[in-house]
Amino acid sequence: MTASITEALQAALPAERFSTSEDVLAAYAVDQGPVLEHWLPAAVVWAESIEDVQAVMRLASRHGVPVVCRGAGTGVSGGAHATPDCLVLSLERMNRILEIHPEDEVARVEAGVINADLNAAAAEYGLMYAPDPASYKLSTIGGNIATNAGGLRCAKYGVTRESVLGLDVVLADGSLIRTGRRTFKGVAGYDLTGLFVGSEGTLGVVVGATLRLRYLPTDVHTIAAFFPEVTTAAAGVLAVGKARVQPAIMELLDANTLVQLDEEQGSDLRQRGGALLLIQTDGFGAEIEAGIIRTVLRQLGATVTTEVSEEAVRLVELRRHSRGAEVDDVFRVGEDVAVPRSRLVHYIAELERIAAERGVGLKVVAHAGDGNLHPTFWVPAGETDKVPVLDAALDESIEVGLALGGTITGEHGVGQYKLRWLPLEQREEVLELQRGVKELFDPQGLLNPGKALPERVEPQAS
Amino acid sequence: MTASITEALQAALPAERFSTSEDVLAAYAVDQGPVLEHWLPAAVVWAESIEDVQAVMRLASRHGVPVVCRGAGTGVSGGAHATPDCLVLSLERMNRILEIHPEDEVARVEAGVINADLNAAAAEYGLMYAPDPASYKLSTIGGNIATNAGGLRCAKYGVTRESVLGLDVVLADGSLIRTGRRTFKGVAGYDLTGLFVGSEGTLGVVVGATLRLRYLPTDVHTIAAFFPEVTTAAAGVLAVGKARVQPAIMELLDANTLVQLDEEQGSDLRQRGGALLLIQTDGFGAEIEAGIIRTVLRQLGATVTTEVSEEAVRLVELRRHSRGAEVDDVFRVGEDVAVPRSRLVHYIAELERIAAERGVGLKVVAHAGDGNLHPTFWVPAGETDKVPVLDAALDESIEVGLALGGTITGEHGVGQYKLRWLPLEQREEVLELQRGVKELFDPQGLLNPGKALPERVEPQAS
Repeated sequence: MTASITEALQAALPAERFSTSEDVLAAYAVDQGPVLEHWLPAAVVWAESIEDVQAVMRLASRHGVPVVCRGAGTGVSGGAHATPDCLVLSLERMNRILEIHPEDEVARVEAGVINADLNAAAAEYGLMYAPDPASYKLSTIGGNIATNAGGLRCAKYGVTRESVLGLDVVLADGSLIRTGRRTFKGVAGYDLTGLFVGSEGTLGVVVGATLRLRYLPTDVHTIAAFFPEVTTAAAGVLAVGKARVQPAIMELLDANTLVQLDEEQGSDLRQRGGALLLIQTDGFGAEIEAGIIRTVLRQLGATVTTEVSEEAVRLVELRRHSRGAEVDDVFRVGEDVAVPRSRLVHYIAELERIAAERGVGLKVVAHAGDGNLHPTFWVPAGETDKVPVLDAALDESIEVGLALGGTITGEHGVGQYKLRWLPLEQREEVLELQRGVKELFDPQGLLNPGKALPERVEPQAS
Repeated sequence: MTASITEALQAALPAERFSTSEDVLAAYAVDQGPVLEHWLPAAVVWAESIEDVQAVMRLASRHGVPVVCRGAGTGVSGGAHATPDCLVLSLERMNRILEIHPEDEVARVEAGVINADLNAAAAEYGLMYAPDPASYKLSTIGGNIATNAGGLRCAKYGVTRESVLGLDVVLADGSLIRTGRRTFKGVAGYDLTGLFVGSEGTLGVVVGATLRLRYLPTDVHTIAAFFPEVTTAAAGVLAVGKARVQPAIMELLDANTLVQLDEEQGSDLRQRGGALLLIQTDGFGAEIEAGIIRTVLRQLGATVTTEVSEEAVRLVELRRHSRGAEVDDVFRVGEDVAVPRSRLVHYIAELERIAAERGVGLKVVAHAGDGNLHPTFWVPAGETDKVPVLDAALDESIEVGLALGGTITGEHGVGQYKLRWLPLEQREEVLELQRGVKELFDPQGLLNPGKALPERVEPQAS
């Protein structure tokens, strides 16, 4: 099977769009998520056009070969990990910005356009593409769509779904469809666009997107607020909400995160507090909003930067670009539970309890504005015997997050790594409906198999 | 068939939740959309609980009887029109606000809660439910979800989809599922919530919803800007966009709409201009934004209210509540095409051309902020011979809207009335995928048959 499809691909595509060399296969075997089982793909294909993607899908369908789509490979849930005998279909060369229309406030892009590149192009018109995952300097719009990526400013501006108006999708059989529209509003037909967003390459290959742009704010105010401890910082998040002020960014950093930053940068953040809230307001009301926030947080006992703070701006930028340097491994694992905002403080307390009881390290950063946390548990590198403890801590943290009304993944996606937790959140009937959708779109089960959705447990013969 | 299900329902439900009396059947036979073929339902059921809905769906499935769900019946596309031998399942009595959580900024409601009632309850906490269709004093959250309702302020705050976090849905077989989550963010599983939103009761019966609330703005500024003609007013819309200011509301009213308002209210709007832009800014930047907008529009030659204008506020309120009094009939028909914003001016010019060429009346109001227009064509009441001309004008207006990159329905839904236009917008492959989704969720085809999605054209035997 593998041999015949690689021959067919070689015949169908120019040599430079195709590789089976060992080092290439190794480089495209995994994304940045934890690896459960390591597989090399049978081949890597770099599509340069929609027609290339269609040719690949037609051949894959004919030969019954699985296809794992891939943007920049910055995912952290293993959604782009290779599966046995698969083709990895890279969209990274489809990186043209097809159109930016400043009056319609719309962009059309190929799937491989890097988020930051689109933002740079839009900025020339006073516009921005709002979703800003921490990987935004590396990750592609197609990858962002596959995971319905969030980021720092989505409490105010919405996640990827809210910025996608329409999609060009190559289906499993190689046919091309267009979903959605170019207008901001539209209710014709079922929301297929929304169905593809966040489906992690399991329903079709997103090759292009029509995106809504937003106004690049001219006025931005940044606040750093140090609190004695993380619980009061979480109370600060609720107090800002209660003042009915919507920040663009509200990041919570715990004491261990401050220690780590101090070690990396020689700063003294940890001396100044046990937790830090980094808040940015933007838009024409930014100054008024920043004033209200400062007052509210001081009343709670925070030490708040008084005027324009270069340090605060630098810290936000550092936080926004935090991907690339840090990748989890078996000795350091994280999750991205989101909880209702009122439960932030409870969840952080539970995380601290879990870490203490199990004797593992913990640091927490959170997109506090929307209750999405990124805790990291760790044990000393190389202490392999402690890995099971780490995994148990992680499992418990998920269970506690769900018990508090949360979800197992706020923005990273289920991929391969979080499959085991999905049945804790969604009942079998709901999973089964989704399997029906999957079978409708991909009857042969070739698109990113074993991802996003746990397989049906077939009844045992008695 | 009909007799046996009515007997079964009588046995299953208390008498006051069920009726087959002629006047009741007539009252529940249609919504406010144009009627193509008039049918009476076999019975009307008022569910008072999820269990009632489940009982109805179980019986309907067993007897193979179609079910048309209904909220307040304010839809304008015939989505709630009765079909032959159907049950009309009214959710209007399921009108409890189950929870408003001011810290989570979340509400949980039954499907029959009226939009305005939820807003009144949320306002006590400084919160609002953002989607505001003109029917908001009458229409239910369930109906708003069924059509993915928009409204005046959705350019800034998003349509219904953007405020729905999770749903409780009774499926065709009577089983209950919960989709989505309570958190602002979450990417576990396919977006079933989004699939149900806007599906017009064809995939399941939405019985409850978890909704995101937004901050009720404390500062609101309202501007009335009179322009010599509608084309310059449309240019004003683009100029506000180019200033990168996002109004909460931006309504465009043409000369004939002003004439109508003057006749109804004894005002002199038409004397003051040939088109009116009503703009509202809100939030902490509202005053600054209003100042920029006034400057921009004056530069285009508009006459702009200088300070707080009670008239402007009154006109916006009038526009916001404009549903209830006006219902289309065969002599007055409207549509709700949305076009890319840069095409607003072209589309209005085309509408005027169509009306002039065909000798029919025209007035246009538009949610100009998101390019969603509500033109109305009319002929004198009673002139039945002119109805075909009216329909031809309508058809042409749809074709022109699509040619300009628009959609056949920005916010009203396809229902029954717009079915004939959907294949002009969406290709057969895309319709066929949606039919597959429909068959997956409703294999017997009982939920609101003949709505939202044109039936498959079976190949003719030769």
